[in-house]
Amino acid sequence: MLRTGLLGAGRIGRIHAANIAAHPGSQLVAVADVDAAAAQALANAHRAEACDAAQILEDPQIDAVLIATSTDTHAPLIEAATRAGKAVLCEKPVDLSLERARACLAVAEANGRPVMIGFNRRFDRNFAALRAALDAGEIGQAEMLSITSFDPAPPPASYVKVSGGLFRDMTIHDFDMANFLMQDLPQTVRAVGSAIVDPAIGEAGDIDTAIVTLTYADGRLAVIKNSRRAAYGYDQRVELLGSEGMLSVGNLLEDTLVRATAKGVRGAKPTYFFLERYMAAYAEEWGTFVETVTSGAPIPVTLADGVAALELAEAATQSLKSGEAVTVRTKG
Amino acid sequence: MLRTGLLGAGRIGRIHAANIAAHPGSQLVAVADVDAAAAQALANAHRAEACDAAQILEDPQIDAVLIATSTDTHAPLIEAATRAGKAVLCEKPVDLSLERARACLAVAEANGRPVMIGFNRRFDRNFAALRAALDAGEIGQAEMLSITSFDPAPPPASYVKVSGGLFRDMTIHDFDMANFLMQDLPQTVRAVGSAIVDPAIGEAGDIDTAIVTLTYADGRLAVIKNSRRAAYGYDQRVELLGSEGMLSVGNLLEDTLVRATAKGVRGAKPTYFFLERYMAAYAEEWGTFVETVTSGAPIPVTLADGVAALELAEAATQSLKSGEAVTVRTKG
Amino acid sequence: MLRTGLLGAGRIGRIHAANIAAHPGSQLVAVADVDAAAAQALANAHRAEACDAAQILEDPQIDAVLIATSTDTHAPLIEAATRAGKAVLCEKPVDLSLERARACLAVAEANGRPVMIGFNRRFDRNFAALRAALDAGEIGQAEMLSITSFDPAPPPASYVKVSGGLFRDMTIHDFDMANFLMQDLPQTVRAVGSAIVDPAIGEAGDIDTAIVTLTYADGRLAVIKNSRRAAYGYDQRVELLGSEGMLSVGNLLEDTLVRATAKGVRGAKPTYFFLERYMAAYAEEWGTFVETVTSGAPIPVTLADGVAALELAEAATQSLKSGEAVTVRTKG
Amino acid sequence: MLRTGLLGAGRIGRIHAANIAAHPGSQLVAVADVDAAAAQALANAHRAEACDAAQILEDPQIDAVLIATSTDTHAPLIEAATRAGKAVLCEKPVDLSLERARACLAVAEANGRPVMIGFNRRFDRNFAALRAALDAGEIGQAEMLSITSFDPAPPPASYVKVSGGLFRDMTIHDFDMANFLMQDLPQTVRAVGSAIVDPAIGEAGDIDTAIVTLTYADGRLAVIKNSRRAAYGYDQRVELLGSEGMLSVGNLLEDTLVRATAKGVRGAKPTYFFLERYMAAYAEEWGTFVETVTSGAPIPVTLADGVAALELAEAATQSLKSGEAVTVRTKG
Repeated sequence: MLRTGLLGAGRIGRIHAANIAAHPGSQLVAVADVDAAAAQALANAHRAEACDAAQILEDPQIDAVLIATSTDTHAPLIEAATRAGKAVLCEKPVDLSLERARACLAVAEANGRPVMIGFNRRFDRNFAALRAALDAGEIGQAEMLSITSFDPAPPPASYVKVSGGLFRDMTIHDFDMANFLMQDLPQTVRAVGSAIVDPAIGEAGDIDTAIVTLTYADGRLAVIKNSRRAAYGYDQRVELLGSEGMLSVGNLLEDTLVRATAKGVRGAKPTYFFLERYMAAYAEEWGTFVETVTSGAPIPVTLADGVAALELAEAATQSLKSGEAVTVRTKG
Repeated sequence: MLRTGLLGAGRIGRIHAANIAAHPGSQLVAVADVDAAAAQALANAHRAEACDAAQILEDPQIDAVLIATSTDTHAPLIEAATRAGKAVLCEKPVDLSLERARACLAVAEANGRPVMIGFNRRFDRNFAALRAALDAGEIGQAEMLSITSFDPAPPPASYVKVSGGLFRDMTIHDFDMANFLMQDLPQTVRAVGSAIVDPAIGEAGDIDTAIVTLTYADGRLAVIKNSRRAAYGYDQRVELLGSEGMLSVGNLLEDTLVRATAKGVRGAKPTYFFLERYMAAYAEEWGTFVETVTSGAPIPVTLADGVAALELAEAATQSLKSGEAVTVRTKG
Repeated sequence: MLRTGLLGAGRIGRIHAANIAAHPGSQLVAVADVDAAAAQALANAHRAEACDAAQILEDPQIDAVLIATSTDTHAPLIEAATRAGKAVLCEKPVDLSLERARACLAVAEANGRPVMIGFNRRFDRNFAALRAALDAGEIGQAEMLSITSFDPAPPPASYVKVSGGLFRDMTIHDFDMANFLMQDLPQTVRAVGSAIVDPAIGEAGDIDTAIVTLTYADGRLAVIKNSRRAAYGYDQRVELLGSEGMLSVGNLLEDTLVRATAKGVRGAKPTYFFLERYMAAYAEEWGTFVETVTSGAPIPVTLADGVAALELAEAATQSLKSGEAVTVRTKG
Repeated sequence: MLRTGLLGAGRIGRIHAANIAAHPGSQLVAVADVDAAAAQALANAHRAEACDAAQILEDPQIDAVLIATSTDTHAPLIEAATRAGKAVLCEKPVDLSLERARACLAVAEANGRPVMIGFNRRFDRNFAALRAALDAGEIGQAEMLSITSFDPAPPPASYVKVSGGLFRDMTIHDFDMANFLMQDLPQTVRAVGSAIVDPAIGEAGDIDTAIVTLTYADGRLAVIKNSRRAAYGYDQRVELLGSEGMLSVGNLLEDTLVRATAKGVRGAKPTYFFLERYMAAYAEEWGTFVETVTSGAPIPVTLADGVAALELAEAATQSLKSGEAVTVRTKG
């Protein structure tokens, strides 16, 4: 039974709380949040205790912490929690600063406790099935990856200002997906982008539409397409062309009803946003964390993976500014 | 808070238990089963009490009972529970005997307590969307309904022997779907069938493959296609042709991965069976029951609906034997 | 080079004329029609001669005739053409009277010339692929066939009056499809139907909506669903359930454009009607006729097949009137 | 009646010959080819005359020429034919040298005769429907275009050597599609690529896998994905994201048969290659040329369009070599 403390009682924190409580191998024992009332309400709903983050970290009865706080606290909390001997599941990104994230990685590695980063898409059964089919050799050798990742509606400019920019905030999921499927870091990153959806995003110094191209040492290629707006809903698809075929993952739809009339044949839209699309993935993610920590098996999405995705975000940010290709530092 | 007792701790009982426990408007307080150990285990998992059925019916603190016991006990339990003042949600069918089911309906009506029958498909979001689109006039007037309902694999002959036969056991869901979508009882029922999937089913006096045709007083038509075996999984589809178009509901798929190779383009199979396909529908069904009973709103699937579906099953059984069309008694 | 005379210069005749002219193994030499101007125009377009039917039948230089005249002339023309030693491709149906069709079959068999009936759907590449997959054992043994066959819009009542009724005019294609795929005649036919699309069709003594159920000696079942109106276009689909899976053929669509907006995801309608859907099938049909007649191979869709489909239409017509199942005479 | 001479009796020439002969507004009068036997055979098949190219150009009775010869002869033939007063439909590309193509454009403009370039995809009904939906405002303002363009199998290295390279030979179609849909030239072109499909292509100095990114002055973006090999067939898809939704065009499939078995649900592959996919587009292209030339309406795909596509191919070739973004010269 993994006794778990939850740091962060916001929207994502509440989803994690329900998963922690529902899993037969874990127990939600404590919830902390800078908003004490929110922590109390969430704790009550799951018969857990509300306390502050420090108490959770100091409590020797707590085996694991799930970090779902604001991004700027991720790195210090990972460091403190691993120092306190806890296993950690932390929401992405590790930090907006690559340097800070690398420092955190060094500390966590020294502390020797398992840290998993919450890249939820790896636990989506569709993307997982794609990876499994690739590993099974169903399309031979991978050659070209294409990721479509569009949000249904842009965030307010106020959010954009503190987000670290499109590549660190949104594309970071796609960079991790590329790393997950290509199983290597790219050699070069090229990014183009513009603020065409909402001029206020441009005024805030960010972009809302982007295409990022990745090249790999062995000749493979990848492309990530991002938009902050798709009027028809959250668009999350992957296509992987290989020497013997293509694997592709489409969207989940709101329902299977089809209306055929004189106007055409109309089906449902994709499920609205990440909470709808990835609800099952969050539960799968937590289940994997519990099993991994309990059994001592290798963590499937490591803190190093979180840093790697951030490296690509950093490279894309530089490429967008300079207009040039950016070479990614080699792994070693 | 609807204080609920569960009668029956088998496979379906366990699903209902989880839904009762998870719903914010209900509480699972007691579980009974002829297998006392099963009742105890399920009660423990949800911090409820294990007791016997009589205790649940007598307990004035219990507001509602969910009946998930064997079919032969449904009618007496509905009668006893409504007599004891409980609201009832009972699994289908009401009884294998139409006469017994009608008697139960008379008793329950006299007792004046709400009774809902667990026709789960009405709560499937896809079929519900079809009905909503019909009600919204999207295809004008309905003209022809076609229901495809295939199980993935046939049950053992031992089950078939006590099942009441294909029409009362399996098609009854489809009869209710026809009633739900056509919003009237048919005038005539014609059935053809054979034991072509498994000869043992034929030796047990039943069929495993059937087509039932329904005609309505206003000229509308319906057809139900049943098979006990679809090698590709549970096949549950509906097409409704109307004067201005067609509404159709397809299967849910295991995942959205598509493999395109030299051999063709291959997608996933439908989700395996009713538990996978209708898991969300069971939760929706329970939520509807809680809201309806709590608010005093009309029950959406009544005991009379359960009897009506049984009437069609009875008519189909007769038609299969005689080879003739069977006229359905008019409602009044 | 199959020197061919065309009898009938109407809409279907014009399509056949183009196919006869375009095929490298055939030549359109003469065209006849009761409307001499129509015959002349069509002959001109293909550098052929316009003449009357008798001339075509008497011309020893003409090897084959394609009969695309009105239904009542089919049987006498088949008899006369085979008597004159021509190979014949005749549009369906053989005749509206089963008795007359059987007499025609006897005469044609005595004359010993090949007669093929134009059941165009057998030459549709999609249905042909279904049959090939069945023959290849891809779904094991066939168990249940379901044919959906809806026209886009009902014909005028004036057409209906001389059509022989829905089963002889429209369903006859579906009866042949059932015979093609089930490779046996059914044992019983049951039909229900109504005039729900257009009351004028009912006043003309016909129906516009029907469901026909077929049972086979070995326990297999089939159902044909017909409507004279589908607002979204010509709906021509087949599903064949077998012991190891299902084969299904869907509609051809007008285009592959998909529009995803806030209102849903909208694709194209099916191609409008039989000319659009089966244009390629007509060419394939003619090609098969040319190859078969030229090589002396067995005719793939015989006059006997035309009579068999008519037998089922006759049985369905009787069943509709009586409300009873009708037993189909055995083949021998 | 557009009296037409065909230059080139190869594979594409034969398709054009059939379309010219079949169109009611045009007549195939003469065929020329460096292989005189091929010209003779094709001429015979359509009752046309075989002659040499010079004769066709000099014949005052010939109104139009269709140029389907080898690429190196396109520019001189366009110049000669327009000088001789013919209307011209010329296969792509204009030339492998941008400078030569520009010179040809200048000559043709001076000659004042209509020249259309055979970018067949503009006449594919699916892409045409996408453009029409865009023009009708169905997705608001275009923002991001994504073109997938994969051949089924790589050409031999011998072909690659004389092809002008992937961008001039294959991507040129996609550059024209981008120009057609974005209705402006891009500002910058970035290309990455590798020879990962076939090392022999790399040894021949070319690539077989590429991603090209385009940026537009108003912030719009586009990406083209190319591969010389898709094991499942010719993959030709377009997605256009706009402010109010997405338009996408998928592949045509070999048939609509779907096989559902225990192994999954398998449908047909895309039609094999460009001849299968674009057969109808070639006829539409020719029909448009005939109507345009006959009516004096503006040519829909001009020689200038052919030069514009070549400019992008040139820019992509440079970008691939340098690794840098290449700025496209502005239109004026």
